[in-house]
Amino acid sequence: MPGREICNWRDNKKIDRSSVKYAVVWKPDPGLLASMPNLEVIFSAGAGVDHIFEDTKLPKNIPIVRFVDPDLRDRMSEWIVLQCLMHLRQQRSYDRNQRQHSWLELQQPIASEVRVGVMGLGELGKDAALKLKMMGFQVSGWSRSKKNIENIPTFAGDNDFNEFLCQSDIIVNLLPLTNKTTGILSRDLIEKLPQNGAIKPVIINAGRGGSQVAADIITALQKGILGGVSLDVFEQEPLSESSALWDIENVILTPHVAAVSSMLALASYVTQCIENYEANGSLTNLVDTKSGY
Amino acid sequence: MPGREICNWRDNKKIDRSSVKYAVVWKPDPGLLASMPNLEVIFSAGAGVDHIFEDTKLPKNIPIVRFVDPDLRDRMSEWIVLQCLMHLRQQRSYDRNQRQHSWLELQQPIASEVRVGVMGLGELGKDAALKLKMMGFQVSGWSRSKKNIENIPTFAGDNDFNEFLCQSDIIVNLLPLTNKTTGILSRDLIEKLPQNGAIKPVIINAGRGGSQVAADIITALQKGILGGVSLDVFEQEPLSESSALWDIENVILTPHVAAVSSMLALASYVTQCIENYEANGSLTNLVDTKSGY
Repeated sequence: MPGREICNWRDNKKIDRSSVKYAVVWKPDPGLLASMPNLEVIFSAGAGVDHIFEDTKLPKNIPIVRFVDPDLRDRMSEWIVLQCLMHLRQQRSYDRNQRQHSWLELQQPIASEVRVGVMGLGELGKDAALKLKMMGFQVSGWSRSKKNIENIPTFAGDNDFNEFLCQSDIIVNLLPLTNKTTGILSRDLIEKLPQNGAIKPVIINAGRGGSQVAADIITALQKGILGGVSLDVFEQEPLSESSALWDIENVILTPHVAAVSSMLALASYVTQCIENYEANGSLTNLVDTKSGY
Repeated sequence: MPGREICNWRDNKKIDRSSVKYAVVWKPDPGLLASMPNLEVIFSAGAGVDHIFEDTKLPKNIPIVRFVDPDLRDRMSEWIVLQCLMHLRQQRSYDRNQRQHSWLELQQPIASEVRVGVMGLGELGKDAALKLKMMGFQVSGWSRSKKNIENIPTFAGDNDFNEFLCQSDIIVNLLPLTNKTTGILSRDLIEKLPQNGAIKPVIINAGRGGSQVAADIITALQKGILGGVSLDVFEQEPLSESSALWDIENVILTPHVAAVSSMLALASYVTQCIENYEANGSLTNLVDTKSGY
């Protein structure tokens, strides 16, 4: 960005704070943003913004723009389709058989017999839903407010939630972390998933670790109420070495890498946003500061 | 099929062979089909027909119809997309890290940086190519005779083969087994794959085991010229318990289950074909007996 000063806060804490117009942050030091009187726009370095809202002194009325780049969306869909296919095609069972040099065909439903319910229908959830549908799965979606996606039935709000759950063999969580979604992947939810589907219920979480209750998931796996889970996010990250999750056969873990943005893509996105903003005052991908995402 | 006699050869070998009009076979006893003078159509119970051609007394000039059902195609694409994503997303490395309780982010290219070359562009290859493209991969195809697929560059014949290989990070083989394709996945082919791609070369074989030279693949994996392989088919099936393939980390094995047809789908397909044939004499999905597939 020729003609502008770009400053990395960690490297230069003596910068004149009143000179800062734009801030790109992930988990800003509490009170830092409030100490910049001329701040016009806050950019989140990721699609999630819950880390920003942890700053209790976060200045109100400054627009927050989330980072949604096509790469992030595509990477997330890669990971979600991979996880759904691994559970559908019983990859962990075939892994075990391979380790045992065992040639054994397993009974195999086809994707079109399996129902995937996507929770959270923003840019990421919508793309994942469409790609899962294209791979043959029966796909539906659920979100706080009603969303329309071509050829995909959608549910909305608390009223529809039970109906959505009881027709989902695989739950894919992409919800942001808010008061309403903290601990949503709990025993209550698990017990509403159908036990008579083509596969045993599966939970896939690539949203936020705070949305899952790990103890409930472990218990449900041990009881056989859940057939498997894929987790990329955890209440505490990195996941503790002593967590029981690491060693349960049908648990697939990745270290918060489902969709990692490149710094290059972030820089290019922020540059573009600032150019648009200065040209016509418009901002896209704005966070609703009231609902917290 | 009301009004018709259906006979399972294994159960009733005393049947009047001259009464047989249609035969549904996988690997028929040599000479059996030739002993049926009024046979009009042979149906293969799978998409592959190489087993039928092993019968040296196979009657000439009787049309052979292969079994291509949408389920088979969709199941095959599930398996191929799963394998490509597992290699792209370094699943075996994350599996190892999980076993070691190790939280470690790996550098990760995006699908659009990885080039997949699909060998064999029949119903199955075309569907897999389109789904891989939709998942973000750069996809090209190669077949004996030129095929056109929207938005996917295609190569054809011996002349294009080297050019096709040197722009393919992942090779997906779906070729039928013929004289020309026996042993095609060999050291020669492997050495033409690019060493400067976003990922190390990968071979995925869901065609026929006879198309691969397992010893060459093992050597290339040990030398690091190949980054990984996924094999569903083998020269000898079941794969010998003592094969080195079972234990190489980046080798993903499944026991010839990539696309298993249901007997129900086969019965329904054959019924439909016979009805069409008797109504208007037409047959679809005919095997070219000269080229052997």
